[in-house]
Amino acid sequence: MEKLRFLTPERVREVRARFGTPAYVYDEASLLRQARAVLAFARPHPLTARYAMKAASNAAILRLFSRLGLGIDASSGFECRRALHAGVPASAISLSSQECPEDLEELLALGIQFNACSPAQIESFARARSGGELGLRFNPGLGTGGTNRTNVGGPASSFGIWHETRETIREQVARLGLRAVRIHSHIGSGGDPTVWQRVAGMTLEIVKSFPEVHTVNLGGGFKIARMADETGTDLGRVGDSVREALEAFTRETGRALHLEIEPGTFLVAGAGALVASVHDAAVTGAGGYRFLKLDAGMTEILRPSLYGARHPIVIVPGEGPDREATGDYVVVGHCCESGDILTPAPGDPERLDPRRLMAAQAGDLCVIEGAGAYCSSMAATNYNSFPRAPEILLRSDGSLVLIRRRQAAEAVYGDEVPADLLPGT
Amino acid sequence: MEKLRFLTPERVREVRARFGTPAYVYDEASLLRQARAVLAFARPHPLTARYAMKAASNAAILRLFSRLGLGIDASSGFECRRALHAGVPASAISLSSQECPEDLEELLALGIQFNACSPAQIESFARARSGGELGLRFNPGLGTGGTNRTNVGGPASSFGIWHETRETIREQVARLGLRAVRIHSHIGSGGDPTVWQRVAGMTLEIVKSFPEVHTVNLGGGFKIARMADETGTDLGRVGDSVREALEAFTRETGRALHLEIEPGTFLVAGAGALVASVHDAAVTGAGGYRFLKLDAGMTEILRPSLYGARHPIVIVPGEGPDREATGDYVVVGHCCESGDILTPAPGDPERLDPRRLMAAQAGDLCVIEGAGAYCSSMAATNYNSFPRAPEILLRSDGSLVLIRRRQAAEAVYGDEVPADLLPGT
Repeated sequence: MEKLRFLTPERVREVRARFGTPAYVYDEASLLRQARAVLAFARPHPLTARYAMKAASNAAILRLFSRLGLGIDASSGFECRRALHAGVPASAISLSSQECPEDLEELLALGIQFNACSPAQIESFARARSGGELGLRFNPGLGTGGTNRTNVGGPASSFGIWHETRETIREQVARLGLRAVRIHSHIGSGGDPTVWQRVAGMTLEIVKSFPEVHTVNLGGGFKIARMADETGTDLGRVGDSVREALEAFTRETGRALHLEIEPGTFLVAGAGALVASVHDAAVTGAGGYRFLKLDAGMTEILRPSLYGARHPIVIVPGEGPDREATGDYVVVGHCCESGDILTPAPGDPERLDPRRLMAAQAGDLCVIEGAGAYCSSMAATNYNSFPRAPEILLRSDGSLVLIRRRQAAEAVYGDEVPADLLPGT
Repeated sequence: MEKLRFLTPERVREVRARFGTPAYVYDEASLLRQARAVLAFARPHPLTARYAMKAASNAAILRLFSRLGLGIDASSGFECRRALHAGVPASAISLSSQECPEDLEELLALGIQFNACSPAQIESFARARSGGELGLRFNPGLGTGGTNRTNVGGPASSFGIWHETRETIREQVARLGLRAVRIHSHIGSGGDPTVWQRVAGMTLEIVKSFPEVHTVNLGGGFKIARMADETGTDLGRVGDSVREALEAFTRETGRALHLEIEPGTFLVAGAGALVASVHDAAVTGAGGYRFLKLDAGMTEILRPSLYGARHPIVIVPGEGPDREATGDYVVVGHCCESGDILTPAPGDPERLDPRRLMAAQAGDLCVIEGAGAYCSSMAATNYNSFPRAPEILLRSDGSLVLIRRRQAAEAVYGDEVPADLLPGT
């Protein structure tokens, strides 16, 4: 059975008493530890590490990382604005997005760095910043994702400029009077050092076509082990692989490159937990299942429904000590949606996979661990009109600080045009 | 190739010019047509039809249906409040939820009807409304969903009270001094009249254990054909099947039952479209794909990523007439997420399935049809910090009326605790 990572039963009960459930809790000590590990990547090679803020976008997290010296990887113009609003300096923000923002010119004028992800984005950049320096995001033709859906490299991925077109791109950049100074090649969630070395090599091959490039950005996707049977990334070994590739490049070409990486999951996944309440149970006969029903679900954590992702689940008795007894439970969310499950079979959200948990009953708490990345930021928010859950930071001194209020129930439909303006009334 | 359903190229361009993209558009004429078809279900059997409002929850839609005589099926206490706020009378709202709301007593006092979905919910009801009348939602042990994830009946479903426990439940209801007046058995998305008849029969068997029951609610799940190769529900035939089952029950028992149904998809799926812009394209070499990139995606329509659901996709040139030329495209969303695709293989979001579309280029519009149900209400809203898209009603007189404003970019993080209160600063 899984155990609590950074919370204690007492703290879990305190979260419910003070903030209600469901609520996300982030652990400052874990965030600091992961940030320090990332900042040591490929040491002593010169490094800029950027936090992929789409993983969890709360200003408190952005500021914490920014203070430690991490930059920001923004995936949209809106994320740039959000990071600026949080107090991150523009010069620390880098934008690599599928959708080129409408306010690109203004963002560039503020000092935000830009990696063009397509020929059209190079044109947009040239219009916005004549003669400027930009990065180019390439698809190196290979990916490492755990599933096709987390694989953002290779022919089945629309991310970045296809590697075979590099000569055309070089000519386009020159014709527009721009300078390509960074090559970027995020290829997705993986932890295998040999794959990282191979992709680094492919990316460095592209760099050879761009003599003005001084920085290579290998993106992120450093997998972590949420479940006991999963293998996380040995960041030290991956860093060694990448450093060796960079040193070989320098030996071969005489060019020394600055390195950038953009982890999201690695920085925050293990530092977050969703605290929910068990409010009901169901049993479906002899050939059926035992279900636990939570007051949270795909509205707070979509990854199990979307990917069949597994998260550790820990029952905390509503009061009293832990129980000896256990049960095999399918844990389900609160939405009127059969896909709203927390215990899918690995990689297969169509199948239920009962989990051995402490014997549970209504009134207990249920902690979903490994919920720091792509949970608060990527959920079916407001489905069934449930308001968005609050976010709380567990400070290193043990205090709980509210960093996002629970959404007001009326705010769920607050943008609807007022009733007296409605048609046909 | 698919065609526009209720929009025209001119109207699509008008949507962009006036409201920007992405934007949801609902068609009043289609909503009226579907509502009338639903209200004729099983005619001349006495019927209450309730709109499953989780499908699309805008007040304008709720009011339109309410005015036509449809009731509301609410899946959470929050949905009850939202329907009340829209002006729906409490007596027209029925609550069947996985999570029993904290304000149940108040909702019941207002006159909202309640279907208890578990023994614990029966207890909650008894505490809130001593001696009251309630409905009981059963899981009849059979489902009809198209995938396990849209199947809300059978042993793999946590929804409702397991049918084999009906005697225990009958005793519980009697012991608590309550009266069970409705039996409810929503079993999920299907369109086969023989399955509906079978489930109606199973549900009516349960009714036999509850002599005070006067109403049977068979839920919804009437599938529609979004794509040309899909088969929709022949509502007339399903209605005939259900009426025959009810008549047979009356002949056998002498009891006449009122019928309730709760369609969601059937009422709104075909009446909604998502209007997006094509902003970029990508090609991944000889063995690869041609991608079209939209300014919308899983932030507005999650069903393709979640289920491998297919929606018709229609290109509208940014200006000028339709083009003769076509292309095979993978259509992708704007999120930095490889799973953000609009053209998955049927039922398999892991695989890309290029779609034959009108030859497209940046600046064109792209209309995702069949987007009226479970799109605006069940999306990965605000992922990558994209603001929530507006909703527009196409009135029967041809006018476009804004019924939900585009979310302000700052509102995406408006509930975060202000920066000067943040820790460590």
